Amino acid sequence: MFFASDNGGPAHPNVMRALMRANDGYASAYGADPIMEEVRAQIREIFEAPQAAVYLVATGTAANALTLAALCNPWQTVFCTPMAHIQEDECNAPEFFTGGAKLTLVEAVAAKMTPDTLRRAIMAEETRGVHGPQRGPVSITQATEKGTVHSCAEIAALSAVAHEYGLKVHLDGARFANALVALDCTPAEMTWKAGVDAVCFGGTKNGLLGVEACVFFDPADAATFELRRKRGAHLFSKHRYLSAQMQAYLSGDLWLDMARSANARGQRLLRGLQQMPHVQVLFDPPANLLFFDAPRAVHARALNGGALYYVMGGDPHVGDPEEMLTGRLVADWSGDDQAVDDLLDLLRA
Amino acid sequence: MFFASDNGGPAHPNVMRALMRANDGYASAYGADPIMEEVRAQIREIFEAPQAAVYLVATGTAANALTLAALCNPWQTVFCTPMAHIQEDECNAPEFFTGGAKLTLVEAVAAKMTPDTLRRAIMAEETRGVHGPQRGPVSITQATEKGTVHSCAEIAALSAVAHEYGLKVHLDGARFANALVALDCTPAEMTWKAGVDAVCFGGTKNGLLGVEACVFFDPADAATFELRRKRGAHLFSKHRYLSAQMQAYLSGDLWLDMARSANARGQRLLRGLQQMPHVQVLFDPPANLLFFDAPRAVHARALNGGALYYVMGGDPHVGDPEEMLTGRLVADWSGDDQAVDDLLDLLRA
Amino acid sequence: MFFASDNGGPAHPNVMRALMRANDGYASAYGADPIMEEVRAQIREIFEAPQAAVYLVATGTAANALTLAALCNPWQTVFCTPMAHIQEDECNAPEFFTGGAKLTLVEAVAAKMTPDTLRRAIMAEETRGVHGPQRGPVSITQATEKGTVHSCAEIAALSAVAHEYGLKVHLDGARFANALVALDCTPAEMTWKAGVDAVCFGGTKNGLLGVEACVFFDPADAATFELRRKRGAHLFSKHRYLSAQMQAYLSGDLWLDMARSANARGQRLLRGLQQMPHVQVLFDPPANLLFFDAPRAVHARALNGGALYYVMGGDPHVGDPEEMLTGRLVADWSGDDQAVDDLLDLLRA
Amino acid sequence: MFFASDNGGPAHPNVMRALMRANDGYASAYGADPIMEEVRAQIREIFEAPQAAVYLVATGTAANALTLAALCNPWQTVFCTPMAHIQEDECNAPEFFTGGAKLTLVEAVAAKMTPDTLRRAIMAEETRGVHGPQRGPVSITQATEKGTVHSCAEIAALSAVAHEYGLKVHLDGARFANALVALDCTPAEMTWKAGVDAVCFGGTKNGLLGVEACVFFDPADAATFELRRKRGAHLFSKHRYLSAQMQAYLSGDLWLDMARSANARGQRLLRGLQQMPHVQVLFDPPANLLFFDAPRAVHARALNGGALYYVMGGDPHVGDPEEMLTGRLVADWSGDDQAVDDLLDLLRA
Repeated sequence: MFFASDNGGPAHPNVMRALMRANDGYASAYGADPIMEEVRAQIREIFEAPQAAVYLVATGTAANALTLAALCNPWQTVFCTPMAHIQEDECNAPEFFTGGAKLTLVEAVAAKMTPDTLRRAIMAEETRGVHGPQRGPVSITQATEKGTVHSCAEIAALSAVAHEYGLKVHLDGARFANALVALDCTPAEMTWKAGVDAVCFGGTKNGLLGVEACVFFDPADAATFELRRKRGAHLFSKHRYLSAQMQAYLSGDLWLDMARSANARGQRLLRGLQQMPHVQVLFDPPANLLFFDAPRAVHARALNGGALYYVMGGDPHVGDPEEMLTGRLVADWSGDDQAVDDLLDLLRA
Repeated sequence: MFFASDNGGPAHPNVMRALMRANDGYASAYGADPIMEEVRAQIREIFEAPQAAVYLVATGTAANALTLAALCNPWQTVFCTPMAHIQEDECNAPEFFTGGAKLTLVEAVAAKMTPDTLRRAIMAEETRGVHGPQRGPVSITQATEKGTVHSCAEIAALSAVAHEYGLKVHLDGARFANALVALDCTPAEMTWKAGVDAVCFGGTKNGLLGVEACVFFDPADAATFELRRKRGAHLFSKHRYLSAQMQAYLSGDLWLDMARSANARGQRLLRGLQQMPHVQVLFDPPANLLFFDAPRAVHARALNGGALYYVMGGDPHVGDPEEMLTGRLVADWSGDDQAVDDLLDLLRA
Repeated sequence: MFFASDNGGPAHPNVMRALMRANDGYASAYGADPIMEEVRAQIREIFEAPQAAVYLVATGTAANALTLAALCNPWQTVFCTPMAHIQEDECNAPEFFTGGAKLTLVEAVAAKMTPDTLRRAIMAEETRGVHGPQRGPVSITQATEKGTVHSCAEIAALSAVAHEYGLKVHLDGARFANALVALDCTPAEMTWKAGVDAVCFGGTKNGLLGVEACVFFDPADAATFELRRKRGAHLFSKHRYLSAQMQAYLSGDLWLDMARSANARGQRLLRGLQQMPHVQVLFDPPANLLFFDAPRAVHARALNGGALYYVMGGDPHVGDPEEMLTGRLVADWSGDDQAVDDLLDLLRA
Repeated sequence: MFFASDNGGPAHPNVMRALMRANDGYASAYGADPIMEEVRAQIREIFEAPQAAVYLVATGTAANALTLAALCNPWQTVFCTPMAHIQEDECNAPEFFTGGAKLTLVEAVAAKMTPDTLRRAIMAEETRGVHGPQRGPVSITQATEKGTVHSCAEIAALSAVAHEYGLKVHLDGARFANALVALDCTPAEMTWKAGVDAVCFGGTKNGLLGVEACVFFDPADAATFELRRKRGAHLFSKHRYLSAQMQAYLSGDLWLDMARSANARGQRLLRGLQQMPHVQVLFDPPANLLFFDAPRAVHARALNGGALYYVMGGDPHVGDPEEMLTGRLVADWSGDDQAVDDLLDLLRA
């Protein structure tokens, strides 16, 4: 009953097989491997973006920080929500890679900026000449860290506000596939057709060992990316092992299948929880990640019963058994329905 | 006939098998995987350093830049040779990760600093209060980028000079195993017994997909390392895949066997070249990397015959056929004697 | 009728005379001038802090950014209000000088953090190991950018929260003298006796050409300051001209006299405004800076009549004449009562 | 007998008077003062560069570091001599302000790069894609830190090499006036007519309290300068006091008169030393700065007699009295011939 994270599960066997296949003989290093050529073509096709600049890195934080750095000057500020991964979970990596840019936190509803809150935040950063931080890119997380998903129209509306002020739009897509499957739309619809300028297209949380693609729809935006990647020590010499993972990920819709698998279990969890009167599901989670409030005693029972997930707001084992604490459940591609049902049983009892 | 680099060959099958084994079920993320516990113990045992702080990253540049950053303030300067990887091949990553430290180039003989040239360089950086760059760590590359290897006594002599001025000693060990095997000494003898404070213990160039260990013999020196690694986006969520590689590397002396294999072919190349009157081997290369001067026509013939290696100083195909150009040959663990002999035939003809 | 800023007025004649006196013959450079010795002694005496480390720089932003950088690691976050100068008016200088630290905005009441809002902000930055930004210093602005002043007890209460979490306390004292005079307390009471670890003791806004002192009550906190100052290009070769300004400032209580003069006019403005029914004074401004709401037409009349001050929230000349806009008035040491009365006449009419 | 530095002497009385005049009533802050308008016009006229972008800062290190940062990306390297101020005397400020660029040291003859050594250094920084540091601007120091002066033709020859590789040319003109007077040429001839793209036009070492102008002949090169200056905390609120100094400096050829005065004393020193058989003047110093070798006993006698200057290479008071040590003499605008003659007497005796 592992629901602690979507980075705890195994990589897909197809991915492992692709690694094996790639491990044959000599290959050019530093991204000049032939598999990368295929990956670039695959991503351009999937995104319907034949000109896109495409790069691979091994961690989600690297993808975000390098992509933002390519879009943001050190004296600018990135607009994002208070719960964005770039704000909460990257130990100031965006500040480091941009050379000291700021993050401006935009009021969020269900972990999503609205056109209104974004506009207000942008207007509040009136730069007054050189005195204030200068306005920089807008960063949208899809799916959000709270499990919610922006509709394509919502993304388009945020992008429209950003572009009105001449700002670029970055999409943190660590859970891109989960969101896409939940929305049942195309990658193009969820990105450049909705005004996104650059996307971090995640694979690590969805069945890879560790690969993310940075995709810039206008290659001019990527002008400094390769130098930043090398300087950031994120250019792999044996790059073929990154390429091979991504190639397998994109072949035969494996990436979509894995996301559907994770989401299915996420929705099974959701339906189960919604039937429990002592439990309150937060937000409206259509993908593989959900938050729920339950009494401490319920969490304690589940954890003692072998469930693994995070409980926030207090120690689940110490304190008033009736106090409501928030649990976070994440379903990954490799889980099974039995584990879901076992967890629900524990929470329900 | 691939002699272009030791990062072009495949990973060892044992390493791939270890990856497969690691890919089973759920594991704690971010370095809390149980395999990492084993790796830490293995490295401490191999280095006879039960207190050492041990971390894994995926690229050699990350290992160097993060380790140096932990040892060096932004207003200091790192002492290294002009041909050090940190100077020549990291696109200013050390400057980036240290927050703007300088590199002071120390005169090298056969790509090695001498106690004399190091002392002169340190003394020349008389800081005059706050005006000049302040003296920072000394970085030794073992084996060097020119294929030479410091004896343990040479390392100890350099460390003694560094310590005399209160400076830390960093060892860039991207080819640590090749040097160790060439010297036939112990890891402890080549590092902390010779005064080294921190070593980047490379695996990527010696049969891994991409893993390096950063080892600090005094854990106090590593106080900021974990925060720097995360902030640098070099902490892997699915860390077990790094751990598994390193575990396999260190098990059953695989790492030494692979280095012996690479070195054997390096020495076979060396003996072959030394018998050719029209060829001049540079330096005195005891491991798996060598440089040689040969007429342009000889290089052209080899390259046209299918050999792959770098030629420096001019286009091997255009110009005076008698002009001497420098070739670089690197043997990796996976090569075979036949390829060596075929290359020698081409160069000899 | 200049009320736009306290950096628009002249330096005090005593300060100019001190510059003249200092301009005689040769003097040691870079802070080794004999006047600096006197300044150090003066500041230690005034603050009753015989061990304090004392440095001079020429701009308020330099004072804040360098002092914070000495107290804050790049992976940490500084706690401050949303209207702090370091957040709003320094073009990311704190991020630059700290090497990429973050600023966490703490909810403010009348531009002041409360122990409660500070505690909540600190607790919300639960760092979860290396993932989140790490907690760094707390920065208090005294007087605030909205003209309010913390009582010594308020500062002490904020410091107590900070120290409970092991965090240092920085005081941005660009308007230190104005606050001190308003509170009628001693410098020690307003700083280290209230738990402040380091203060930027401003002079530029209070009658100097451009000098601020950075004072660390525990010299250990200043260990890196001098190197940071030089590396930040803020160490003056002809330092005596900074020293001379500060010496004159502190001699014969000139600094207090100037602050009293500015505050007196600030209070005269306040009393005048409070008697106007169509005007609303914001906050509770005890020193030399105040904000007030008035109809657009009132602002337009004042500005057309020759008054100089900032109007926020819209163009004072274009739009509904009844719409309320916010004006900011700052009184400096050099003003006179007539200008105040003239402005009040314009606003009253 | 103060010959320790040209930053030890007083500011010129005209400059002090200009400060006094500027200290009258209110003035717009942050560079919007009317005197700055005049200064901009003066500099454009003096340099015959009506489009030049002109900014003032207060220290030479700020001028160099900010100007280089505007011309140099973090992954690039600046070409300069080993004795350049930016390399030796700025505590890594260029690295800090550029965000981690490198400095590549070019072999110097009499402290000057030659077209040959510059070309060799540029060619040696073959960047090999993203691996090596990328080539950045060339920085020329005029006059050099060793007292030598480039002819306009020499500057033009270095610029030609730089431009051949598409690199910008920066001139560190901390002693611009001394060099100009020594060459008897125009500012335009010594800068943009010789290919210089941006110059740091020093005033601090030549009779000001502390002001340097950063002049970009192509305003496009200055696109980021104002943001960098503010972020670097080098934008003065009471900017008029910088403007006033520079205005006085440029009025009535005061700057040239002061440089002539300093140089005259420099040449008087030179002629005196050249007649002493036990003394060896180094380089060929045409301006106000010179180095000379003399026996330790000679230095000791001079210093004991009241002379103030730096002696390098050993303690002038301890050791073999016959050992040759190097002294550095700097003449400033305010000195007098008597002090020169007194020093020569001491050295001659």
